[in-house]
Amino acid sequence: MANWSAVTKPNPTRTIWCHVDGRTVVVIDQTRLPHAFETLDLTTLEDAAVAIEDMVVRGAPLIGVTAAYGMALALAADPSDAGMEAAAARLMRTRPTAVNLRWAVGNITEVVGALDPPARADAAYARAAAIADEDAAMCSAIGDHGLGIIEEIWEAKGRTGVVNILTHCNAGWLATVEWGTATAPIYKAFEAGIPLHVWVDETRPRNQGASLTAWELGDKGVPHSVIVDNAGGHLMQHGMVDLCIVGSDRTTAHGDVGNKIGTYLKALAARDNGVPFYAALPSSTIDWTLGDGVAGIPIEERDAAEVTSISGMAADGTVVAVRLTPEGAPARNYAFDVTPARLVTGIITERGVAPASEEGLASLFPGMT
Amino acid sequence: MANWSAVTKPNPTRTIWCHVDGRTVVVIDQTRLPHAFETLDLTTLEDAAVAIEDMVVRGAPLIGVTAAYGMALALAADPSDAGMEAAAARLMRTRPTAVNLRWAVGNITEVVGALDPPARADAAYARAAAIADEDAAMCSAIGDHGLGIIEEIWEAKGRTGVVNILTHCNAGWLATVEWGTATAPIYKAFEAGIPLHVWVDETRPRNQGASLTAWELGDKGVPHSVIVDNAGGHLMQHGMVDLCIVGSDRTTAHGDVGNKIGTYLKALAARDNGVPFYAALPSSTIDWTLGDGVAGIPIEERDAAEVTSISGMAADGTVVAVRLTPEGAPARNYAFDVTPARLVTGIITERGVAPASEEGLASLFPGMT
Repeated sequence: MANWSAVTKPNPTRTIWCHVDGRTVVVIDQTRLPHAFETLDLTTLEDAAVAIEDMVVRGAPLIGVTAAYGMALALAADPSDAGMEAAAARLMRTRPTAVNLRWAVGNITEVVGALDPPARADAAYARAAAIADEDAAMCSAIGDHGLGIIEEIWEAKGRTGVVNILTHCNAGWLATVEWGTATAPIYKAFEAGIPLHVWVDETRPRNQGASLTAWELGDKGVPHSVIVDNAGGHLMQHGMVDLCIVGSDRTTAHGDVGNKIGTYLKALAARDNGVPFYAALPSSTIDWTLGDGVAGIPIEERDAAEVTSISGMAADGTVVAVRLTPEGAPARNYAFDVTPARLVTGIITERGVAPASEEGLASLFPGMT
Repeated sequence: MANWSAVTKPNPTRTIWCHVDGRTVVVIDQTRLPHAFETLDLTTLEDAAVAIEDMVVRGAPLIGVTAAYGMALALAADPSDAGMEAAAARLMRTRPTAVNLRWAVGNITEVVGALDPPARADAAYARAAAIADEDAAMCSAIGDHGLGIIEEIWEAKGRTGVVNILTHCNAGWLATVEWGTATAPIYKAFEAGIPLHVWVDETRPRNQGASLTAWELGDKGVPHSVIVDNAGGHLMQHGMVDLCIVGSDRTTAHGDVGNKIGTYLKALAARDNGVPFYAALPSSTIDWTLGDGVAGIPIEERDAAEVTSISGMAADGTVVAVRLTPEGAPARNYAFDVTPARLVTGIITERGVAPASEEGLASLFPGMT
């Protein structure tokens, strides 16, 4: 993956960057993927806020960085205390429960609030860029540690054939600033020349795998095949998967992994067939206050319309929503599930790979439990 | 479920019947479900052949009965030996690998071929109706035996709340003549007044659950919720499933169950959470020559377009296909998987419920193994 530089690139490896003018912030419009690749210029606070609200940007780390740049855009227009406070309030309203967003806005306010107003905008831009770089570095470290796992499998296969990796949902670079989490080891291994093939779970109901992960991998030239979420068990029964890597929204101190609905089913199949199953995640998503994830992690139930309808590109090139079920059919939409630690081979973090257990995680992060 | 009589009913419980005129054969146009309920009159051999080819009718038992009626329609027009042979050849070409179809056409030919030509048509109609009745009776018996399992669960719950049943794909009455296989115990329990709720796996890629099973259950008034295939594990972890019942395309003499892709993942989750997992099937689908189903049952790989695209109803009421993946994204489409007998609590057949093992099946079907 090439180093990123601050110009609009035809084939970016980052999801957000500052234009060469030093003021305009550029993001990939993720609402248009996978059917179109378009970038969007953010030139005002309101542009940044709407980009977050409309899910032009998605993924906790990317939302945080976009909010940080939103503060910079606001301060370039009005560096007063009142302007800064209004900007923070506007951004906080966009996604009230987003932890990274609240942290990033608070961090910018703290860093630049102490400065004289004329100095604030430049400092905010610098701090936003640093937050982006920190996230990219963390994902890169996750990738380096995960690469070791893939290298071992490649050696165990006698360096023949390909390493088949199954992933679920999109824990890719589109959800972060660069590299992604679950995809970081894949991109590192691909760059290291290890022959790979990725099984991409489509990940109903929102199909982040079929749309975003497939787009990412195709964009980078990584061999892959989209499969329905039902297929992974069959593949593992027949030796067609060497390794599973998923992301995580929230992992407990005991190593229970909360992730997109369906992750647990893949972990069961991996265990039944002796396939290693890893979760890759920044330690910031570990909830050190929770032990039993099945009992303790609340599972969001979302709009049933995500189950009964789906969007795609029609033959005429328009993107349309179609209903899949009989009119009025009832549906339920649980967004996440929890994979018990006993089914998880290891947790890949920015500090290394830990066993999925209290002792394992504590060994990498002493003092946290 | 009311007894069926030979008239066009507004709310049929059979998928095929003979019109009151004694000649016209009526089928439900399953290509229009779930967005429209329409019946189709078959008045000629060619009508019947095209209905099979175009999947207006689907499911092995229903295809067989449609072919039998196709022979009757042909003989009503031309009862000569040449006419009968040409009709058999035409029907055999519609779905060359369909075992029930070949059997039904052969059976009609054998039964009516010995008669004088003027007597053949009436005899063929009578025999086709008998084949339909035999299939319905077999599914009804499967339902009666499965009802006992649901009654036991209802008793074990102290006759409080509802019995939550998860099913995958469509092994419903739309795939048979009446009752279905996996759904037969559900309809029997519903008629017996046991409070039920059915979790309907949408069953990607062809979505037979979200379309056909949801339509069936809605039509009969059975409470149900459509869920994505990813959700079942989460539901079972949280005690929201009392019982799984699936169908089977091919079951081995050892009790390994070949069924729609994804069945294995649900069986793993059922085992992990102590949920009983049953397959309901007519004994005609047991392959007594096979032991190890994972090694022995060949898995059809179908067109990748079933994964990358899906059809549904757009806002303007038209049914359109939309692409879900990036343009040109590679995909693979494995149609079935095999659930090892060790994960199957029992096999529900027309003769009773057997343990999923060689001994279990042999006890119900002595002399077959």
